[in-house]
Amino acid sequence: MNYKKLGKILGKIMILEGILMLAPLAVCFVYRESFKHILAFAVPIAALVLIGILLQLSKPQRNTLYQKEGFALTAMVWIVMALFGAIPFVINGEIPNYVDACFEIMSGFTTTGASVVTDITKLSHSSLFWRSFSHWIGGMGILVFVLIFIPESNEGSSMHLLRAESPGPQVGKIVSKMKVTTRILYLIYLGLTVLEVVVLMLDRPIPGYENEQFFFSLLTAFGCAGTGGFGFLPGSMEMFHPFSQYAMSIFLILFGCNFSLYYLLLIGKVRQVLKSEEFRAYFLIVGAAVAFVFISLVGRFEAFPQTYTTEEAFRHSLFQVSSLITTAGFTTTDYNVWPMLATSSLIVVMFFGAMAGSTAGGIKLSRIVIAVKGTYINVRKLINPRYVPKAKFEDKGLEEKTINDVFAFITLYFFILIAVIFLLAFDPVNGEVVTIVSDAGTYTVKHGFFSNFSATLACISNVGPAFEAVGPYASYVGYSVFSKIILTLTMMLGRLEILPVLILFSPKTWKKV
Amino acid sequence: MNYKKLGKILGKIMILEGILMLAPLAVCFVYRESFKHILAFAVPIAALVLIGILLQLSKPQRNTLYQKEGFALTAMVWIVMALFGAIPFVINGEIPNYVDACFEIMSGFTTTGASVVTDITKLSHSSLFWRSFSHWIGGMGILVFVLIFIPESNEGSSMHLLRAESPGPQVGKIVSKMKVTTRILYLIYLGLTVLEVVVLMLDRPIPGYENEQFFFSLLTAFGCAGTGGFGFLPGSMEMFHPFSQYAMSIFLILFGCNFSLYYLLLIGKVRQVLKSEEFRAYFLIVGAAVAFVFISLVGRFEAFPQTYTTEEAFRHSLFQVSSLITTAGFTTTDYNVWPMLATSSLIVVMFFGAMAGSTAGGIKLSRIVIAVKGTYINVRKLINPRYVPKAKFEDKGLEEKTINDVFAFITLYFFILIAVIFLLAFDPVNGEVVTIVSDAGTYTVKHGFFSNFSATLACISNVGPAFEAVGPYASYVGYSVFSKIILTLTMMLGRLEILPVLILFSPKTWKKV
Repeated sequence: MNYKKLGKILGKIMILEGILMLAPLAVCFVYRESFKHILAFAVPIAALVLIGILLQLSKPQRNTLYQKEGFALTAMVWIVMALFGAIPFVINGEIPNYVDACFEIMSGFTTTGASVVTDITKLSHSSLFWRSFSHWIGGMGILVFVLIFIPESNEGSSMHLLRAESPGPQVGKIVSKMKVTTRILYLIYLGLTVLEVVVLMLDRPIPGYENEQFFFSLLTAFGCAGTGGFGFLPGSMEMFHPFSQYAMSIFLILFGCNFSLYYLLLIGKVRQVLKSEEFRAYFLIVGAAVAFVFISLVGRFEAFPQTYTTEEAFRHSLFQVSSLITTAGFTTTDYNVWPMLATSSLIVVMFFGAMAGSTAGGIKLSRIVIAVKGTYINVRKLINPRYVPKAKFEDKGLEEKTINDVFAFITLYFFILIAVIFLLAFDPVNGEVVTIVSDAGTYTVKHGFFSNFSATLACISNVGPAFEAVGPYASYVGYSVFSKIILTLTMMLGRLEILPVLILFSPKTWKKV
Repeated sequence: MNYKKLGKILGKIMILEGILMLAPLAVCFVYRESFKHILAFAVPIAALVLIGILLQLSKPQRNTLYQKEGFALTAMVWIVMALFGAIPFVINGEIPNYVDACFEIMSGFTTTGASVVTDITKLSHSSLFWRSFSHWIGGMGILVFVLIFIPESNEGSSMHLLRAESPGPQVGKIVSKMKVTTRILYLIYLGLTVLEVVVLMLDRPIPGYENEQFFFSLLTAFGCAGTGGFGFLPGSMEMFHPFSQYAMSIFLILFGCNFSLYYLLLIGKVRQVLKSEEFRAYFLIVGAAVAFVFISLVGRFEAFPQTYTTEEAFRHSLFQVSSLITTAGFTTTDYNVWPMLATSSLIVVMFFGAMAGSTAGGIKLSRIVIAVKGTYINVRKLINPRYVPKAKFEDKGLEEKTINDVFAFITLYFFILIAVIFLLAFDPVNGEVVTIVSDAGTYTVKHGFFSNFSATLACISNVGPAFEAVGPYASYVGYSVFSKIILTLTMMLGRLEILPVLILFSPKTWKKV
């Protein structure tokens, strides 16, 4: 292992994290928060920058990174980011338990949005900002950011890191001119975020929060862009006006698109965008899921507490599907009590996730499409052993290796899902009765199998809120320290798409070759 | 497609089913059942034999079967078997609805044991016999049976059918001399069944059922051998004495072993058996699961209604784990109300299933082992791109194709699971409250997501009883006709390991080449 080079890159990222933390520190000053709050950010900034600079002193003999080093570094970076990112919550006392704080900020960076905060109104502006900002940072991936904007690094190493951090089975077509295009992707990301802030500012402010409109718009845009999902008001996005809720739905769907598609749009290749199979699958699935949820809510084939107008039913269907397929996890209503067709539709899209190359989590639709094609090929081969597959995906030949990697990934995804569900079974919280207060009234639910199942799914797919006792109006606070650590790792496994984390924890990685 | 040859084999199997139905017909006479009951079997026997003979009249031009024909035939045979096997229940009026009856007998042949019968005490001896006998028939696979014992068929065709019907990723080592060895496997199956009947007869009879001991022992042995799980008394196996319950547990574990291992034992290769990786994984997992369930029941970390002595807790743990990992689905107590650790342990073993080449369902442990090895190889390759895997499984080289097939299978397994869960969401039964009476007392459960999830898992893994509203003391009767058809197909998908069913329903199969 090229420890010195690893340390150097890690150090750069720590310095960057320190710099990024200046933003919430500024928020402290804007809102005249107490000295404790300022210290909460100043201390980790000082630590990050100091350690970061010290790490720059080493002189690596080799300037390149092997693949394994790239993968391990990626996983390591995310852990270090969380370990330092959690410190503010502990110092300002708003999430005093360090494991809880790590859970919260890992949930932020991985754009999960699962929270241990029970009363969101007690968080300071700086904490709220840092939580939502972490979504925005984590959405596009921090490592790639560093490697793109810091000149010293070389293409080969960056490539390994990009592979490790980018969601999806294939690194996009536009990788060849990586630095240039990735910069463009970041600009698109920034542009869309700014656009969302502007659009949200057009709405009337939320009554009682007139002075907060810009702050809220910013946090919302951070969350949508990163497809994170941390709320900052009781009931997540419930208080927002319909205009904002519709706007968020649309922006969520946009942020669930592969960013290369925007690049293609920018260079005028509209037809290529419309021909993208993943793009078509995405809109087909979003459309179908919205329809199913809407029918389920309007049809009332099964009793549930809320009474929606047709418009409300449509809005909540659109919002919840957009929010869960992009694995953001914002909510406008308590979907926990919805009928089975709605529930099952939401669970299915939580598995899927949105497009590869977006900021969303989950299995990713490109993998689903490739797996379906792979299955078709397997069946065809059994029907006719001489069948020679000429499979294509996105107008390019689909290699057997890609298909096999996808099958291997999906298998691993489900194995981890089952393993984590099993590990949660040891938690004393199981069987406990939780009281939930929401727009569906006050009701109690038992922490049962569905809670653990959906919590695991929500973490590995980076959704955030789950169902039953960890539904949208509940929190993860009830889980034990052990479970929280497991779920924190699960979020990271989901965000980094498993393999980098396995490589980090594999003893073989650290052995001398 | 070689329709004539397909018809001819199908006809033979229909005749065989007719012959096998003579057994329940005989039971009608032994227990002096009414004319209606005799007719219930006489009519389908006549129909089966008549159609079967008519199908023999065709003269196929080609005597061999292509692979696709073998696969499609296998799936077709199972459907035809169920369509005719369901008739007795409709005629004798004990399951008057034909779809219900098809569900019940498909559940029998696929050795699932999921039932739509709400009051088991109302079934006649002949019906009870036919249900349990169908487990025994389905356990080892009917097609292979026909092809082995009927001389005309040729090795090549049989091979395709064996591949389609045999559970597991690889057809065993002893296939080369297929006819001889498969006959030996059938003899082992028969021998173990007889042995279990003898052992069960050693126990004291169940009070109130003194005259039924032989009948019950026979049905139990059928169920254990096929790892089916249809009960014939209220509360499944609850009324049996501990001796019988222990005996069943041991026989279930034995029937969950790959039958080739018995062959190896018979020819004295004990060391090879003990070295089998799947065998080791099986005993490790059974041991661990029993330990977890036992700890969960004895530790009482979570409240549950039953109060067990330590012996009872151990017995129920052993029984439930054996019953669910072998995907039989017999029960001795209401595990539906058990603590989460027990519940989750049982769910995990339901996914796994027992060994390939046994009568059990599920993913099969050999696939789990191969998938784990495949993942290890993938990680190693990422760590060192020049890594050349020298993976072995069961002392033989593990080919990349096998690994990829396993990943493809597991992916498909989970996709089907999710798809079926989604289809069940349309059922009006969702949200209904079911009252359950068991040894845990009388309680109500809502038909929720966990019901559909576990019902789907129980059907695709051929387990039978699930959790929540379709738990061991409930039935599948509440599901709509649509859901029952879906679940019937799911059981078949599970038993035939998906691909034959996909091939049967693929239009390409039926196109002229």
